[in-house]
Amino acid sequence: MLEKIPASPVAVLIDPARLQGMMEAVSAFGGGEGGSMTRLTLSREDADARNWLSRWFVDHGFAPAVDAIGNQFGRLDLAGPDAPVIMVGSHLDSQPNGGRFDGALGVISACEAVLAVRNALQAGGARSACNFVVANWTNEEGARFQPSLLGSSVFTGAAELDWALARRDGEGVSVAEALDAIGYAGHDRIAIPDALIELHIEGGPYLEQKTKRFGAFTRFWGATKYRLAFLGRQAHTGPTPMAERKDAVLAAAYVIAELRDLADHHGLDLHTSVGRLEVFPNSPNTVPGEAVLFIELRSGAPEILAAAEEALQRMIAQAAARAKVEFEVRSIDRRAAGRMHRGLVGLAGRVAAARGETILHLDTIGGHDAVSLSAVCPSVVLAVPSVAGVIHHPTELTHPQDQAFGTQLLADMLHVLATEGLSVITSGGPPQ
Amino acid sequence: MLEKIPASPVAVLIDPARLQGMMEAVSAFGGGEGGSMTRLTLSREDADARNWLSRWFVDHGFAPAVDAIGNQFGRLDLAGPDAPVIMVGSHLDSQPNGGRFDGALGVISACEAVLAVRNALQAGGARSACNFVVANWTNEEGARFQPSLLGSSVFTGAAELDWALARRDGEGVSVAEALDAIGYAGHDRIAIPDALIELHIEGGPYLEQKTKRFGAFTRFWGATKYRLAFLGRQAHTGPTPMAERKDAVLAAAYVIAELRDLADHHGLDLHTSVGRLEVFPNSPNTVPGEAVLFIELRSGAPEILAAAEEALQRMIAQAAARAKVEFEVRSIDRRAAGRMHRGLVGLAGRVAAARGETILHLDTIGGHDAVSLSAVCPSVVLAVPSVAGVIHHPTELTHPQDQAFGTQLLADMLHVLATEGLSVITSGGPPQ
Repeated sequence: MLEKIPASPVAVLIDPARLQGMMEAVSAFGGGEGGSMTRLTLSREDADARNWLSRWFVDHGFAPAVDAIGNQFGRLDLAGPDAPVIMVGSHLDSQPNGGRFDGALGVISACEAVLAVRNALQAGGARSACNFVVANWTNEEGARFQPSLLGSSVFTGAAELDWALARRDGEGVSVAEALDAIGYAGHDRIAIPDALIELHIEGGPYLEQKTKRFGAFTRFWGATKYRLAFLGRQAHTGPTPMAERKDAVLAAAYVIAELRDLADHHGLDLHTSVGRLEVFPNSPNTVPGEAVLFIELRSGAPEILAAAEEALQRMIAQAAARAKVEFEVRSIDRRAAGRMHRGLVGLAGRVAAARGETILHLDTIGGHDAVSLSAVCPSVVLAVPSVAGVIHHPTELTHPQDQAFGTQLLADMLHVLATEGLSVITSGGPPQ
Repeated sequence: MLEKIPASPVAVLIDPARLQGMMEAVSAFGGGEGGSMTRLTLSREDADARNWLSRWFVDHGFAPAVDAIGNQFGRLDLAGPDAPVIMVGSHLDSQPNGGRFDGALGVISACEAVLAVRNALQAGGARSACNFVVANWTNEEGARFQPSLLGSSVFTGAAELDWALARRDGEGVSVAEALDAIGYAGHDRIAIPDALIELHIEGGPYLEQKTKRFGAFTRFWGATKYRLAFLGRQAHTGPTPMAERKDAVLAAAYVIAELRDLADHHGLDLHTSVGRLEVFPNSPNTVPGEAVLFIELRSGAPEILAAAEEALQRMIAQAAARAKVEFEVRSIDRRAAGRMHRGLVGLAGRVAAARGETILHLDTIGGHDAVSLSAVCPSVVLAVPSVAGVIHHPTELTHPQDQAFGTQLLADMLHVLATEGLSVITSGGPPQ
């Protein structure tokens, strides 16, 4: 049963049942047993979810649009063509065998919040100071295509469109081909908004541990991602003398083990991982000729990230020498650490306080599309609690009452922006 | 250009050009650039090669037969139904991106040698003491389905037919389904032969290093193969604290590195490998929840193999504890070390001597179908030189003159058995 949302002087109320209905509807696309969700970007399931969202936009008076990298938008014009634009949203794509809330809640809560604000303004006969655009970004996850945040990076100009369209998945299919296949190679040009707000599950344990219902990511960690190939030589695992083997997976194993040691050495300030490992030819009886590692280093401190990358480069060279293989760094993707917009964080605190809550200031370690957008406009990520901190797993869960509460505060923020104008965030907020 | 084969008192001569023509014909099925061969067992390419062989059998007076595990036979009856049967052959399946000679040369040389012996006997008006069967065994490689030597193991009774038919490839397709799909789920029952001779590329450097043209594998190493799963927990590689991760690939890395140390500790007497590694969900941004390792231990010494397995079990448990994951041993396949038949090795030496060669006695470390057969009948593997010892790689090569010379000695052996009877091998041979 959904909790009642506390009263507030802010005159907008979202509809928790409508929000749940929409979450259930969108979860049908790629949803599996035990809460699992497999809705890889630009897949058939993703296309179905996009089509559902597009229909929702049309049915509710939002003008749908799709840009050349497949980012999907729904614009609600409340203030005329020259008024500021507030963009709200997240992503509908998921990890393979992931959860239902990472991304999808941010898109659905945006739909509900904007709808609630429109209805409140209409009911009160009030004029809006701004227009709203709901966004669904392409390939936030980076599961099918790398790098992650692809759609939002093209949108901000951080990535070239042609380069992004040429990225290929593990089957050799390009982003351009995948967009064509589902009919989402769009032609609309959408301007950089005046502010961006993304609601997302925390994906970490801190809100729950501190019994808070709402947070804002105020800092984002930097990330350095390597796609690295070790190149050995295929040979029979039987007769080939051990001394003559050039085993690509052996070099990979050295790096995987040492990367973990590196993180442990740094305590809480560095996260490292090898989440994906491609082995060729991957036959039980053949010494692997090639191993491709997808390596991530993450830290909130630029100097730690830089030192970790130097250490990584040393361990790659040493592992290659020890296993007698060559290596190629196939790509490097660096995302700098930074801060979210103080004015938006302050507004989040204000609307939370109006409903009797204090917000928790968090670091975000995973990437978010709002991190891309923060380079070009005021941006923030609002966080709602994740049960047991779980993310990227079928048991990922944000309770319905927490979904509703976060969506309510999102609507409150949009309502303040609509009624008071953007000066409420540009004139500064409380210190973080 | 093919060298002339030296004269011999043994009155049979193979046709090197015909042998080359057959090798070229069969290499079309699955052959790619740079000498590569991808003819996975029971694939479309394998079916094409099998159909080609079946037609060759019919065209040359061999009676084709297929048993329930898809082993393909061609019987040439020269001595009446009750006479002894000599089986000759190897396998047409290959590794992914493997070479053209591993297996295929053994089948093609068998065809050529039996044909040459039949022609020589007919030309001389001589009666044969035995019948011949050419064999093409299913799934020798173990690349698509595990374990390797599947067809010959079912044939000898070492593996149950139903169990073998239920093995599944990485896509979930069973052996039974794959046999049905290509029309090779046969019904013929073929008896255990009175002797088995397999010609194979050495796949090692010793013939070339000692400038020998011909060898016989007199001992075979034992092998212990584990399919091992580490079971961690999927989580986001960003926010999930390092201390809370249960990373299945990290445990795999520990085992891969330590297995190599174990082999190095044992010098030349132990080979270890992890040739295949399956990672789930294998997404760059998700801590791996599962890693499946295909581990091999091989040794000629049973006590070393047993000690290595104990060490492996210890390192699995330690790696799991260190990475905070669980593990499951999903299958164990053990093949004992042993010796090939002395009489057949002696006969190989006799025919080589008659053509001015001495044979090199070798260990075989990789499995061969003749190793399966050696449990139920006199068996031997003859070896021809591999350039640079390469095997399971597109550059795998046995020079045409070495192919021809090995095939000639195989024909010589069959001719002696046909004209002198099986007593030449059962009455013992020279000491090895």
